[in-house]
Amino acid sequence: MNYMEELGQKAKQASYLIAGAGTVQKNKALQAISEALIQHTEQILQANQKDMQNAVENQMTSAMQDRLKLTSERINAIANAVLKVVALDDPIGEEIKGWLRPNGLRIRQVRVPLGVIGIIFESRPNVTVDAAVLCLKAGNAVILRGGKEAFHSNQCLVHVMQEALKSVGLPADLVQLVEKTDRETAAEMMRLNGYLDVLIPRGGAGLIQAVVKQATVPVIETGAGNCHVYIDATAELEMAVSIADNAKTQRPSVCNAIETLLVHREIANVFLPEIKKAFDQHKVIIHGCAETAEILGDCVIPATEEDYYKEYGNYEIAIRVVNSVEEAVEHIQKYSTNHSESIVTQNMQNAEYFLNHVNSAAVYVNASTRFTDGEEFGFGAEIGISTQKLHARGPMGLLALTTTQYRITGNGQIRG
Amino acid sequence: MNYMEELGQKAKQASYLIAGAGTVQKNKALQAISEALIQHTEQILQANQKDMQNAVENQMTSAMQDRLKLTSERINAIANAVLKVVALDDPIGEEIKGWLRPNGLRIRQVRVPLGVIGIIFESRPNVTVDAAVLCLKAGNAVILRGGKEAFHSNQCLVHVMQEALKSVGLPADLVQLVEKTDRETAAEMMRLNGYLDVLIPRGGAGLIQAVVKQATVPVIETGAGNCHVYIDATAELEMAVSIADNAKTQRPSVCNAIETLLVHREIANVFLPEIKKAFDQHKVIIHGCAETAEILGDCVIPATEEDYYKEYGNYEIAIRVVNSVEEAVEHIQKYSTNHSESIVTQNMQNAEYFLNHVNSAAVYVNASTRFTDGEEFGFGAEIGISTQKLHARGPMGLLALTTTQYRITGNGQIRG
Repeated sequence: MNYMEELGQKAKQASYLIAGAGTVQKNKALQAISEALIQHTEQILQANQKDMQNAVENQMTSAMQDRLKLTSERINAIANAVLKVVALDDPIGEEIKGWLRPNGLRIRQVRVPLGVIGIIFESRPNVTVDAAVLCLKAGNAVILRGGKEAFHSNQCLVHVMQEALKSVGLPADLVQLVEKTDRETAAEMMRLNGYLDVLIPRGGAGLIQAVVKQATVPVIETGAGNCHVYIDATAELEMAVSIADNAKTQRPSVCNAIETLLVHREIANVFLPEIKKAFDQHKVIIHGCAETAEILGDCVIPATEEDYYKEYGNYEIAIRVVNSVEEAVEHIQKYSTNHSESIVTQNMQNAEYFLNHVNSAAVYVNASTRFTDGEEFGFGAEIGISTQKLHARGPMGLLALTTTQYRITGNGQIRG
Repeated sequence: MNYMEELGQKAKQASYLIAGAGTVQKNKALQAISEALIQHTEQILQANQKDMQNAVENQMTSAMQDRLKLTSERINAIANAVLKVVALDDPIGEEIKGWLRPNGLRIRQVRVPLGVIGIIFESRPNVTVDAAVLCLKAGNAVILRGGKEAFHSNQCLVHVMQEALKSVGLPADLVQLVEKTDRETAAEMMRLNGYLDVLIPRGGAGLIQAVVKQATVPVIETGAGNCHVYIDATAELEMAVSIADNAKTQRPSVCNAIETLLVHREIANVFLPEIKKAFDQHKVIIHGCAETAEILGDCVIPATEEDYYKEYGNYEIAIRVVNSVEEAVEHIQKYSTNHSESIVTQNMQNAEYFLNHVNSAAVYVNASTRFTDGEEFGFGAEIGISTQKLHARGPMGLLALTTTQYRITGNGQIRG
């Protein structure tokens, strides 16, 4: 039994215990974790300091250093976020359906925990706690594999959580950290069939693709977002500018920000100069089709096929003029990663066409794509945004961390 | 673009069209398929005859030949099964949830097709039609990869289905057969990310493991069944014998038949001789623990650790005497593939304990495990039995071939 199998075995044993724990005990555990984080602030900051020193020595970018850094305010915020999960409804035990068969068998479909969840993530130590408490609330054990840049922070946070779990009579093995941060161990984790019920990567495109390619355990793909806003001919001009601007510039690095703006020919002449004014405030670089260039002039870089596939992730956008809602949908079907798309229109028929034909996790009418988010959807917390169609799609709250079981009761039925 | 990518591209295009088709048109297509199968019986039998000749030349076992063989009765049965799918409710379009956010955004979660489904199966040509029509009814395109032994049968059946689809104005590419039956092409299919939304293997453990190990697209694992019946101390004797016998001997080759029988010490002395009488009628080979051997005598082969992991799939069983329902659950947690397990008991508390602690797709009280089946559950038809926890668990009907989409309508909301 290798290192990862040992972690898997321990997690599986622990998962049986929390699956049987009630909401009261699970909430006690979460409360204990929240309190322990505050109590051990000093210890956590010291561990984080080691990671920060290494980061400086390794010349980590300041943006990355900011992601890695913990402060007492940030630890407070993490502890408060745990209390928000306490307040969420426990999904476990829900009877989703129940029916009686002609032979007298009563079948109930009941919501149960997934079992053991693996999370692979990069250097943000807040994910360590966020992900762990969501898994726990849904009755699962979790194995965390964070980036080596955050190793000391993660080790300390996990230790604090483990002690809190023990203090309420739950096994420490419910939350385990993969302490070997080499790639071979990560690869073993991706092939931990029989122990891991699902593996969720949280991080950049490179990490997610590596997991999708290597994993033999079931994976929930997250994060890739080539999102679109389409401005229909009948769009209300002010609303169109406000939504397109918000979707691009409010926070361009996140997956629900847009990368391409599609504009109906009939409104292009009035809309494009207005959105350019808004974009200019953020110095947005525009890659445009020939017609966009005609309207906006020399500032437009000719858009290539490649641009339409690109997730810029910054103040950069592609703009294309189209002839109809059908052409807009075709563009989206071809280039989109099926994350979030929005139509701005006053035409009900076009809105319906867009909703019925765009095949993405979230489809909007007259709203910004930036709302694709667990908090904004009202899920209270989010473990990630699924961009695959299996199991969970779009923002994943507690329900995504559960499965169902059929419970069948009879009085001696046998099959003839 | 290689061969599989071409199939994937065609399937994806076709999937957009059927996703927008209504129930009426989809049912027309299924009816046309059913009629076309009957009309082309002669042609299908001729194609099957080629496969049967090859089978004889390649000295295929008679059991395998029987699976491969089509007759006009069997084609009739396949055509009738299609009509049963016509009669099923269309799951697409269901509004699962809908809520209003404080900012006025209305969010609806709507059931939509998965998109493109891949099925890899072995030599049963009836699967070709069964699987295709279920995928179609749920609004999906399907790519079928059958065993090369059934190549001519499959080619003919798919051609007949394609012509029927065209006759009702739907694209032939909705149902495609992988005509290259080499392993490399199958491997390409398993890595068809961007085209295949899910891959479902249907067949033996070897096929399923090969798919799980090689696939980079999402997979639904099916079929592995190491199932258990536990006879509790308070079990009603006649019921216990009837259920254990049915679960083992009614059809031992299928995944919901049991492989191990667990018996409470207090009832072992009376139960074991009775079940042996029943088993003897099928010459069931018994691998037993020391106590089983003490009670039943020399006929018992000592059970090894390996026996408890084994899926015999024939008239062979392991029997183990245990001290409590807790010990029975522990055994199941350790050795089961989490498919189906049953407790026979008159003790309500033990029944509840079993239901709450056994972590399998289907858990029974006082009924045979043989009921884990789409038809028996009332789903009308079944694409397989999922033994993983992601997406679908247990018998998979039409719902398992769908996903959901969030549709959000606003009046200009942007994120602050």
